[in-house]
Amino acid sequence: MKKFAVILNGCGHLDGSEIHESVMTLLAIDRNDCTYTVFAPNLPQYHVMNHLTRQPMEGSRNMMVEAARIARGAVHEISEYRPEDFDALVLPGGFGVAKNLFTYAFDGVNAKVLDSVKDAVIATRKARKPIGGLCIAPMLLAKILGDITVTLGTDPGAIHDVEAMGASHVKTQITEVICDKQNRIYTTPCYMLDATIADIADSAENLIEKMLEGM
Amino acid sequence: MKKFAVILNGCGHLDGSEIHESVMTLLAIDRNDCTYTVFAPNLPQYHVMNHLTRQPMEGSRNMMVEAARIARGAVHEISEYRPEDFDALVLPGGFGVAKNLFTYAFDGVNAKVLDSVKDAVIATRKARKPIGGLCIAPMLLAKILGDITVTLGTDPGAIHDVEAMGASHVKTQITEVICDKQNRIYTTPCYMLDATIADIADSAENLIEKMLEGM
Repeated sequence: MKKFAVILNGCGHLDGSEIHESVMTLLAIDRNDCTYTVFAPNLPQYHVMNHLTRQPMEGSRNMMVEAARIARGAVHEISEYRPEDFDALVLPGGFGVAKNLFTYAFDGVNAKVLDSVKDAVIATRKARKPIGGLCIAPMLLAKILGDITVTLGTDPGAIHDVEAMGASHVKTQITEVICDKQNRIYTTPCYMLDATIADIADSAENLIEKMLEGM
Repeated sequence: MKKFAVILNGCGHLDGSEIHESVMTLLAIDRNDCTYTVFAPNLPQYHVMNHLTRQPMEGSRNMMVEAARIARGAVHEISEYRPEDFDALVLPGGFGVAKNLFTYAFDGVNAKVLDSVKDAVIATRKARKPIGGLCIAPMLLAKILGDITVTLGTDPGAIHDVEAMGASHVKTQITEVICDKQNRIYTTPCYMLDATIADIADSAENLIEKMLEGM
């Protein structure tokens, strides 16, 4: 029974983790008879968005506290993550990744990465364990690791930026997974492309299966 | 292509809609080549719960605005729901159902139902269209409709209460669906029982398939 660590950063695609991608990742892990443990930074989200009007709203929300809505309970501080306790690490997407975990939404290729996230990814890489990224999360992996091969779908701006970070990009259609076996990086575009919720379920299933093949 | 209306009431199992049940319901609808439209009351949730500590926290959140996190956008006021526009109605669960949509969490069998929810369910029943309920939502359907047959799993207290509301109860194991074909009511216990996230996906899939068989 393989053990996955999953990094979330709130609950909602405009200011935190994309809910469908997060839930489908947990589902794919469970359906493959593996276990998951959810981690998040113990910090306020960059902001709170009204998901109906798509405008910022008042208030402050903590990434761990909000991620617990998706996890249905236990969420651990990301600084407690140790790669030796797990077989793999997965990062679902959502615009919150590019606001909370690194500053790509504001700074583009010069984005700054949250130290705890950078430490978690680098430690997993050093331990030679597989890392998965959905949606915009592959951009974060590229910013941290540089020379890896990932997919972000087909968007020219995203492809330009990820290549400027030193990564190689492979275009994909929805539900496809790019496996950089040398670096053990597995990525799939999800809502970086037009997608239905069933596409997201298939994408997460494909991603977890490809990660398990290499484990 | 059948059209489902889905009633949510926020985003999180302790103060709103249970996220896994809601997402899996949308997934099952999409996987069966049907469409979904999400409705919610345009009202504040009863309260806001910290899902990490399971304690109430400061602030107020609107059911429609928070449900939009799950829906990824469009959520309509429940008062705009018309059964003639849809083929079926589904209510996912979560403790929020028993706090926001009716007052079962506080008043038990004497629970009061939100008028807009009562109107939606009664209009759907009058139109002879199928209604589905997951988790605790069958208790709400029993409170509104009385003499129907539902399942809430195996909990003796819940069974006592739903029978006191005039309904018949059938015990179920996880992922089973009870079909009251005469009244077109379809229910499944989900997190009323110990369940994994894969169980919830299977439950929602079974529920939607059973509803479609009768359509």
